[in-house]
Amino acid sequence: MSGYDHRMAVTRLSIDADRLYASLDALGRIGAYQDELSGLTGVRRLALTTEDGAGRRHVVEAMSALGLAVTVDRIGNVYARRRGREDGARPVMMGSHIDSVATAGRFDGCLGVLGGLEVVRTLEEARRVTRRPIIVAFFTEEEGARFSTDMLGSAVAAGRIPLERAWALADRSGRKVKDELEAIGFLGSAPVELAPPHAYVECHIEQGPMLRAANVDIGVVTGVQAICWHELVITGKSAHAGTTPMSLRADPGVAAARIQVGLREMVASRRFGGDLRATMGVTQLMPGLVNVVPNRALATVDVRHPEDAVLKHALAELEALYEQVAREERVTLQHKVTARTPDIAFAPQVQAMVARHAASRGLSHQRIVSGAGHDCQEIAAICPAGMVFVPGEHDGISHNPREFSSREQCANGVNVLLDVVLELAEDEGP
Amino acid sequence: MSGYDHRMAVTRLSIDADRLYASLDALGRIGAYQDELSGLTGVRRLALTTEDGAGRRHVVEAMSALGLAVTVDRIGNVYARRRGREDGARPVMMGSHIDSVATAGRFDGCLGVLGGLEVVRTLEEARRVTRRPIIVAFFTEEEGARFSTDMLGSAVAAGRIPLERAWALADRSGRKVKDELEAIGFLGSAPVELAPPHAYVECHIEQGPMLRAANVDIGVVTGVQAICWHELVITGKSAHAGTTPMSLRADPGVAAARIQVGLREMVASRRFGGDLRATMGVTQLMPGLVNVVPNRALATVDVRHPEDAVLKHALAELEALYEQVAREERVTLQHKVTARTPDIAFAPQVQAMVARHAASRGLSHQRIVSGAGHDCQEIAAICPAGMVFVPGEHDGISHNPREFSSREQCANGVNVLLDVVLELAEDEGP
Repeated sequence: MSGYDHRMAVTRLSIDADRLYASLDALGRIGAYQDELSGLTGVRRLALTTEDGAGRRHVVEAMSALGLAVTVDRIGNVYARRRGREDGARPVMMGSHIDSVATAGRFDGCLGVLGGLEVVRTLEEARRVTRRPIIVAFFTEEEGARFSTDMLGSAVAAGRIPLERAWALADRSGRKVKDELEAIGFLGSAPVELAPPHAYVECHIEQGPMLRAANVDIGVVTGVQAICWHELVITGKSAHAGTTPMSLRADPGVAAARIQVGLREMVASRRFGGDLRATMGVTQLMPGLVNVVPNRALATVDVRHPEDAVLKHALAELEALYEQVAREERVTLQHKVTARTPDIAFAPQVQAMVARHAASRGLSHQRIVSGAGHDCQEIAAICPAGMVFVPGEHDGISHNPREFSSREQCANGVNVLLDVVLELAEDEGP
Repeated sequence: MSGYDHRMAVTRLSIDADRLYASLDALGRIGAYQDELSGLTGVRRLALTTEDGAGRRHVVEAMSALGLAVTVDRIGNVYARRRGREDGARPVMMGSHIDSVATAGRFDGCLGVLGGLEVVRTLEEARRVTRRPIIVAFFTEEEGARFSTDMLGSAVAAGRIPLERAWALADRSGRKVKDELEAIGFLGSAPVELAPPHAYVECHIEQGPMLRAANVDIGVVTGVQAICWHELVITGKSAHAGTTPMSLRADPGVAAARIQVGLREMVASRRFGGDLRATMGVTQLMPGLVNVVPNRALATVDVRHPEDAVLKHALAELEALYEQVAREERVTLQHKVTARTPDIAFAPQVQAMVARHAASRGLSHQRIVSGAGHDCQEIAAICPAGMVFVPGEHDGISHNPREFSSREQCANGVNVLLDVVLELAEDEGP
């Protein structure tokens, strides 16, 4: 260990913080919009839209400018490869995504992709060639904000979701993934099955308040919490709001509200510990008129917990709540599972490297479970994988134009990414 | 009394039930749509749309075919006048509306308008000329389903809402009443101020379950309950659903749900008696994504009670609930009153006539408070006014394609309307 630390001290490279930050700004201008509530400039680059296409071409140009060999697979994942001294050895991969939710900031995902390119740029400047090839990747529709299935591209690459099923997914206006890939010119020809890399490392903003509150520089991500999404269709009976006695109503809006309040109660009760998260992001009543009891409600539920076993208990209680509310409100309630992933544990050796390199740079660090899903959890199924988190201001707010990590916070994370990748890329073996 | 009853028995006219019902069917075909939930054919004839324009022209043709003089005023109200023996005497007016909500049946409003025309048709066939002129009217945007203010045309006619304010109202896509009147050719030239008629009588479906449950033929409407509509804009803070601890959230969707559940509780508690009605017909979350805590919720509230004093108490409690929820959920909540009418008592002499003529035809009857707002409550401000209710099947469901009153139920109501109008039209005086 001491010998290794000595060698790093002698040869340590660091990335260019200004250059990294400028690249985040430049990509953030693609799909920028003026947020009417905050007055801030946000990012709206939903997967496979015109804006996403423009963002993709921008990043591909940066990859090509670095002399990397770019390939696009049949689900639109993009891989940029730098040759190694032993070019047949398994590559070390960095990556993340550049698609966004409808009301995003400029860091979510982009830090991992542009950070990876900054690592490569730093190696190029130093003329440092590693034993293993290095790949910088970005994956399609990580957010699930358009086609309702998150981590789509990485899940296809890792073999969890079949390509044909992914292609057939449609957005709310019925547009299909395959057609939209074609429309923006990113229906590639490379096979989607990803040959297992030697390791995968992803740098990402925390998207939560923990690191900033603890005044810690680097999060050593131990894994991703278990996640479940439900889509609810609640059907009742439309009626006149002024005349129909409450006892004769079957109001799906009341049912949806009771589930929303029930979710809140499940969390507040702490009977699933303090780490349960529950959100109803969509509630829509039809016909949606002031004086008509609605006949249908659409709603979504997002429930997460660091431990899958606990999430299972919470989901069982939630489904019992669905049944109870449907019975009591005399409505029918159908729920469809639109996403479900168990908790994922990241590779202990990658976690250890992140902690060691952070310490070696004098950066404070702590272990943290990721609250959000990430492409890393998919790639973790086929190779040792791990993540580097950086803190965010404003309670780590994300999926919001107020999302913000400073130049220094971003640079810290990408320097640790550089260190970890350099170590992994010299590893012996196939 | 006995002398009067005798005269009626000798000269009693009755309307043609088949002809009336066929006229309801014909108008119901204009704006008909296939309801995807029930498979039934419903009616969608929102005020001042192309469909409403077609419905209006259809009714105006029927008016003209009866030889009535048709005038259209500057808010699009349509009046068809039949001459009296003393044509300078104040007319007796019948009326209602033909606009509908988005998911309607074919009886709401139309029964009063087509029933009025059937009364005139019956008089024409019998060559019966009354002392006073008779007017059949239909009023613009009774439902408030498009421009958010109900009883719009009759309120302008009775002087409660100024014409300029009514003209300036816009629908959700920003289209204004005046432009839409012009677009369908119903921006008339007659002044909107209605010269007080001798009396106004409106036949309408109950839109509730009471008469049918009691197996009663005719509702003698004592008045309309007090009504209040609120439009809520709740603003919170958009955040990542997976990472943001519940304690740091400001979720406007949770706030809307708590108000929905609170409304339910206010009704169920019966602390405002058994007659409080409360409905949240709209809840919409923005940006409306499964994994994003929303930053804004739009919602509507409709609260009604037969006594204005009780409604005032309920509204005070509701506003306290708004404040409490906003404080506890750390959101801002603005509410705008989009409709507010006190309870209205109909003229005792008209109520007495409705009851007497029902009894004289052997029809059972009972007193009833209207749960819905009606044009009659506006016209009641300028002349003695009253309503005849007929029962509806399926718990009196309305604002729904299942809305249904039988040929006999409709005919009973319009026969009583005929009797009452014939009596009123012979009244002495100016």
